[in-house]
Amino acid sequence: MHVFRSTKSFRRWRNSQVSHVGTIGFVPTMGALHEGHRSLIRHAHRMCDIVIVSLFINPLQFGPSEDLNRYPSQPHADQRLCRQEGVTAMFLPSHEEVYPTGFQTSVTVSHLTSRWEGECRPTHFRGVATVVTKLLNVVQPNVIFFGQKDYQQTLVITQLVKDLNLDVKVIMCPTRRESDGLAYSSRNQLLSSGLRKKAPLLYQALMTGEKAIHSGERSSVRILTLMKRTLLNTPPISIDYLAICRSKNLEPVTYIEDKIVMLGAIRLGKVRLIDNLLVRVPHTR
Amino acid sequence: MHVFRSTKSFRRWRNSQVSHVGTIGFVPTMGALHEGHRSLIRHAHRMCDIVIVSLFINPLQFGPSEDLNRYPSQPHADQRLCRQEGVTAMFLPSHEEVYPTGFQTSVTVSHLTSRWEGECRPTHFRGVATVVTKLLNVVQPNVIFFGQKDYQQTLVITQLVKDLNLDVKVIMCPTRRESDGLAYSSRNQLLSSGLRKKAPLLYQALMTGEKAIHSGERSSVRILTLMKRTLLNTPPISIDYLAICRSKNLEPVTYIEDKIVMLGAIRLGKVRLIDNLLVRVPHTR
Repeated sequence: MHVFRSTKSFRRWRNSQVSHVGTIGFVPTMGALHEGHRSLIRHAHRMCDIVIVSLFINPLQFGPSEDLNRYPSQPHADQRLCRQEGVTAMFLPSHEEVYPTGFQTSVTVSHLTSRWEGECRPTHFRGVATVVTKLLNVVQPNVIFFGQKDYQQTLVITQLVKDLNLDVKVIMCPTRRESDGLAYSSRNQLLSSGLRKKAPLLYQALMTGEKAIHSGERSSVRILTLMKRTLLNTPPISIDYLAICRSKNLEPVTYIEDKIVMLGAIRLGKVRLIDNLLVRVPHTR
Repeated sequence: MHVFRSTKSFRRWRNSQVSHVGTIGFVPTMGALHEGHRSLIRHAHRMCDIVIVSLFINPLQFGPSEDLNRYPSQPHADQRLCRQEGVTAMFLPSHEEVYPTGFQTSVTVSHLTSRWEGECRPTHFRGVATVVTKLLNVVQPNVIFFGQKDYQQTLVITQLVKDLNLDVKVIMCPTRRESDGLAYSSRNQLLSSGLRKKAPLLYQALMTGEKAIHSGERSSVRILTLMKRTLLNTPPISIDYLAICRSKNLEPVTYIEDKIVMLGAIRLGKVRLIDNLLVRVPHTR
């Protein structure tokens, strides 16, 4: 496995691949790799000839009061996992490499970022959009892979790719979950064992909503009330948002039909977790 | 000469060129091509194996009270000029092609756009940065060419290319001037014959400044006073700005040394003209 720390050396290698390599799959990460990332890499292997993984904890996508300094880092374990999974090359740029002195450009996606994660974390998606644009320009993959757990992020990147005419296909892969239903996330390891036991409640709330829909309930208000009840009986959970939205544009819906996504974000002590479920509902009106 | 109106057809052709074409030079334009553009195309021919020209009047870079609706359009003459100059392909996308319904992404360069053109035209550079990012992603040239007349724009694009890791070289070519010194610009044809006669005064003001520097004057205030005098005696000229700045970052200087750029923007009736001169001054302090 090739390991590159500079854009220049990566690019030299990348340009030498042009003629004899087929399709390139790309999995951008912030490291602390888990089964969710492993699944993205395996999806990439199935669709592409070679797989490239980047690892960069992007400060631009963290707010001033967020967990940048606590974000887990385990570069050796990450490289081991990538090697095991047959990754062809890893790109591990330093902060100075990505944001040198004088850096002053940003990429903004507007409507899709106005709600939910965008509202709770006002500079988050600008940071994501900027770093992903940069990484796409360096790596120049044919396909880029994201997990459904970051549903809004995947929509934002899909829009960005379309709007900026980036020549890459965006693939969203299913969320991977631990045996108790908690979505894999690098932030899970920040949970104390007491909070870890409560963390699956977010998924359970989403499942409660899904079950209500499958039982015929079509009112968002009533479903959200059921979902909230699951969480609010259990301190110290606080809800950032629970929402039922059109899956295409994340606008909230009052009557449930077609393809919707149930989104949730909670705080467990200092740890913030997100999750979501997609539900397809036949027209009934 | 190939002429493409859709991104898809352009991209199909572009991808078919990968293996057998050498370097690609790119001249993005808003049409109404003149000797300045011709010179850019010729520079591109000297440096690159094939030359691509785009023509798109980009509404995003015009403010609400600006001259978008009056901006000259002469697509047939433009194609004739490109054919004469041996351009390999023209890309002439429609508005819907560039900004389809739902478009919501923008690219912003901050510090470099805070003054001068950026201050007079607050949304201008965001529009420029966004469309150039898109065009670069579609055309994928090795070299992109801009005229020195749009000096601040060229610096903004150079920064953008660096910051977003776009794999392209930015070349600034000398300003081309009519026999009376007026810099070629598509907007010159909007001038009445009376105003056209007064238009070279902007260049004359810049030359007055240059002459003062060459005579040993090093005070920006005194030089700017001389330059203003050239213009203010001649109604109906109004000055948007005259400035003497560090050529690298466009910060104003008080004492002139190293490489400076004198920037000017004036209004002649409804027509707004810009120009600039680069001056290199040996250290004397």
